[in-house]
Amino acid sequence: MELQGQMLIGYQQLMGKSGSIRAINPATNQELEPAYGYASAAEVDQACMLAYHAFDAYRNTSLEQRAVFLETIAEQIMALGATLTERAHLETGLPMARLEGERGRTVNQLKLFAQVVRAGHWLQATLDSALPERTPARPDLRMQKIPLGPVAVFGASNFPLAFSVAGGDTASSLAAGCPVIVKAHNAHLGTSELVGRAIQQAARLCQMPEGVFSMLIGAGAAIGQQLASHPVIQAVGFTGSRAGGLALVNTANARREPIPVYAEMSSINPVYLLRGSLNAQNEVLANQFVDSLVMGAGQFCTNPGLVIMEKGESADLFIANASKAITAKAASTMLTPGIHQAYERGCSALSEQASVRLLATGIAASAPNAAQAMLSVCDAEVFLSNHRLQDEVFGPSSVLVLCDDFAQMLEVTSELEGQLTATIHAQSEDYAQAKILLQVLEKKAGRVLFNGFPTGVEVCHAMVHGGPFPSTSNSRSTSVGATAIERFLRPVCYQAVPAELLPAALRDDNPWDIPRLVDGTLTA
Amino acid sequence: MELQGQMLIGYQQLMGKSGSIRAINPATNQELEPAYGYASAAEVDQACMLAYHAFDAYRNTSLEQRAVFLETIAEQIMALGATLTERAHLETGLPMARLEGERGRTVNQLKLFAQVVRAGHWLQATLDSALPERTPARPDLRMQKIPLGPVAVFGASNFPLAFSVAGGDTASSLAAGCPVIVKAHNAHLGTSELVGRAIQQAARLCQMPEGVFSMLIGAGAAIGQQLASHPVIQAVGFTGSRAGGLALVNTANARREPIPVYAEMSSINPVYLLRGSLNAQNEVLANQFVDSLVMGAGQFCTNPGLVIMEKGESADLFIANASKAITAKAASTMLTPGIHQAYERGCSALSEQASVRLLATGIAASAPNAAQAMLSVCDAEVFLSNHRLQDEVFGPSSVLVLCDDFAQMLEVTSELEGQLTATIHAQSEDYAQAKILLQVLEKKAGRVLFNGFPTGVEVCHAMVHGGPFPSTSNSRSTSVGATAIERFLRPVCYQAVPAELLPAALRDDNPWDIPRLVDGTLTA
Repeated sequence: MELQGQMLIGYQQLMGKSGSIRAINPATNQELEPAYGYASAAEVDQACMLAYHAFDAYRNTSLEQRAVFLETIAEQIMALGATLTERAHLETGLPMARLEGERGRTVNQLKLFAQVVRAGHWLQATLDSALPERTPARPDLRMQKIPLGPVAVFGASNFPLAFSVAGGDTASSLAAGCPVIVKAHNAHLGTSELVGRAIQQAARLCQMPEGVFSMLIGAGAAIGQQLASHPVIQAVGFTGSRAGGLALVNTANARREPIPVYAEMSSINPVYLLRGSLNAQNEVLANQFVDSLVMGAGQFCTNPGLVIMEKGESADLFIANASKAITAKAASTMLTPGIHQAYERGCSALSEQASVRLLATGIAASAPNAAQAMLSVCDAEVFLSNHRLQDEVFGPSSVLVLCDDFAQMLEVTSELEGQLTATIHAQSEDYAQAKILLQVLEKKAGRVLFNGFPTGVEVCHAMVHGGPFPSTSNSRSTSVGATAIERFLRPVCYQAVPAELLPAALRDDNPWDIPRLVDGTLTA
Repeated sequence: MELQGQMLIGYQQLMGKSGSIRAINPATNQELEPAYGYASAAEVDQACMLAYHAFDAYRNTSLEQRAVFLETIAEQIMALGATLTERAHLETGLPMARLEGERGRTVNQLKLFAQVVRAGHWLQATLDSALPERTPARPDLRMQKIPLGPVAVFGASNFPLAFSVAGGDTASSLAAGCPVIVKAHNAHLGTSELVGRAIQQAARLCQMPEGVFSMLIGAGAAIGQQLASHPVIQAVGFTGSRAGGLALVNTANARREPIPVYAEMSSINPVYLLRGSLNAQNEVLANQFVDSLVMGAGQFCTNPGLVIMEKGESADLFIANASKAITAKAASTMLTPGIHQAYERGCSALSEQASVRLLATGIAASAPNAAQAMLSVCDAEVFLSNHRLQDEVFGPSSVLVLCDDFAQMLEVTSELEGQLTATIHAQSEDYAQAKILLQVLEKKAGRVLFNGFPTGVEVCHAMVHGGPFPSTSNSRSTSVGATAIERFLRPVCYQAVPAELLPAALRDDNPWDIPRLVDGTLTA
């Protein structure tokens, strides 16, 4: 399939004329053909109005139709074959194996949401019977969740498939019944065009209303503001920087009718190494930690950027083991020149902080945009007195924090900002401490994990990829996992609605066969 | 029980020294004893810190303990006997029968949340089994919802019991596991002190941690800003004016860590009278409408402030019938002099709008603060061209809008702001139109009802008392009904947590016997 440099507006494919951009191969700094044209304000508006007009037809599709649509998108993505992963490799520098894995994750996510749609729990169908004999009489009352309306999605650079055009935000919005307008990430334009066309083709095959999906090209901030302030857009999904996320939040709050922005922004993902674990498997832990740190050039939202432990011999040994491990790690290509520059700036800002000691670095970079891993250490007192040490350095850099005792470890914990994840390494002898930490960390993070590392976010029912501010703009939500669908829904109550006018989910005969809460009792 | 003019901070009762205020009997404009002292900033902070320190102990109570606490609050409120309703009558001018009914609603709401807590659906417990054989291996993943933290509650003047100190926001916050700080409404200070003491006493009896509940007295805006900006407050519940709600939203958004504000603000609650209904029961509808309009001096969030129908003979007849009915309605005392003044201002602003015609008024007021009912009419064209006709006039005033045809009725509908409710009166011959209207109205309102009037908000599982902006600040929530609890919760995922450290809701043996989603299947 030849790339055209086109955006997708409903069932059209067209070249924007308001400026243009090419993707860059970060391994060579070469521009990649073709040029992609930016959308004009009129084209942004056109996509929004198509989404608006598609909304009723789309939200009224049956659960089965919507599930098949999601599955068809997955099929169309697989049908792109190696064209997709090869282009993604050129645009991101990510290894082919990683991209094939990420493609699998992306299509499995679509299939999970197809299952979720069919199961129908998310409709939260609730029926309370009329009580005509009561004084005052109670009318028949029924409730379901309905979709909010068109959603604007801003994907991330670091997952060109799984958090991009057909990623979790798109899949969960479409699952909820919301049309989607994706703003393609300028770091992987060709990948975006390919995936966008797969979705467009799936929409055609499934006879979905035109406008259920559009994909626009544009300069980041400007088109972001335009979409987030457009009257028909009813919610925003975003994965990226704190500055980018907060700009969208501010725009959305300043609208005549504010809308929710689900921005997944930044996290340093503290890892606690309790004494028993350090004693039992010091070297294994050090190696696993460094592997997690440098994986994907450290470009994960859940990268372990902070390691917290008590001072002592086993901490010293961990420092030695981790330093040794990191010294052997090759530099690897980052996603974009911009990300690489920001990483270098972050590392040098870190090295300039008072009383933060550089422990070790990975092998020096020789290729363009390659990140050299970096490990630093400081005392808890230093960490507590310098809030800049909580700044995310996006890439393979981590800071070890050494505490005098467990009380100081708790003090460090209580000063942490909101996080996507928090990790505890504990043996049974550590459980008393782990129990106390868990109580604090579940208030600070969306996911708490034991004896593992936070990179790797399973797509399943129980996943939470979210967390208190500033890790996200809305701690009551997740952008990965089945409950991501809840972000794009709102409840509506139907009082005394005649049987023939009731929505399918709430009819007496339960035609979709979904679980419902009937007079307070769950019926499956 | 002697009123003391005291606020309640944890288990203390104390008199604020930073200014004072007395409640006013709106029927006489006389001040009521005793004087209530305003909290100092230090006292606000003290209540917040007590709530903060109570949070862990409170959220770790068992479902049964929390349910019993809610039931005990209900018992303690009933134990106040006529002292409570008599004081509320003096402070609000509401009839005794209404207040007794409202007390019933308030204690039933507490009991409903006790049931909800015990049933445990709201925990959304979700378990995904480990898949150790898979490549990559999947860890054990479990999810539950946990409470956000201390909640600040601002009650409404118009329901001195059901939307006040022990109202829906307090009940659902406590049910969720969140400590509550109520800012007592200055219109019913004695009622607040009585109910606050009932909650304090229930907390003592149930040995709840000190700080699980506090009640502060203060000048509205200042203490509101202080609470909404206090670092330990994690959410706000509010019922009142649009200006008041938006001020809290702005403060909450400007915090270093923004927090959600659930503000229920304003709504004009459109009522559609389709032709078949107008033909079948014109006079009955007119009488029911006027009864709903003047009930409680029109001081309901769900008051029918807008009636929409097509021009024609049956519309003319409805106008005549409704005009006749309203002419016979006595003026009744409003809740406060401020509300009465605002009502008079709203009525005169309405009467000054071009091409809006006064149809009829109720019996003129003679007593202080009594509201005279008012019925106006305009053509749809006038309504469409004048956005001020969508301003809420809080009190017994309603505007009839006459449409040339159904298409214009849809045009009016699409111009409506977000609403708490929308009502359709339809006979079976109207169902084709009703079906189209329902599709639009479910996007505009939190509750759509047929062949009734919107005043009367049942407390049950399926209720939604919420709706798109500006009826509330968050359309994805409700302030009445069982799902109100969801506002104060967030999901946390537990990955590979050792069995002995798992929260009760997620243990293998399901000790609380709650419904859970296990590997995608609902288990009851």
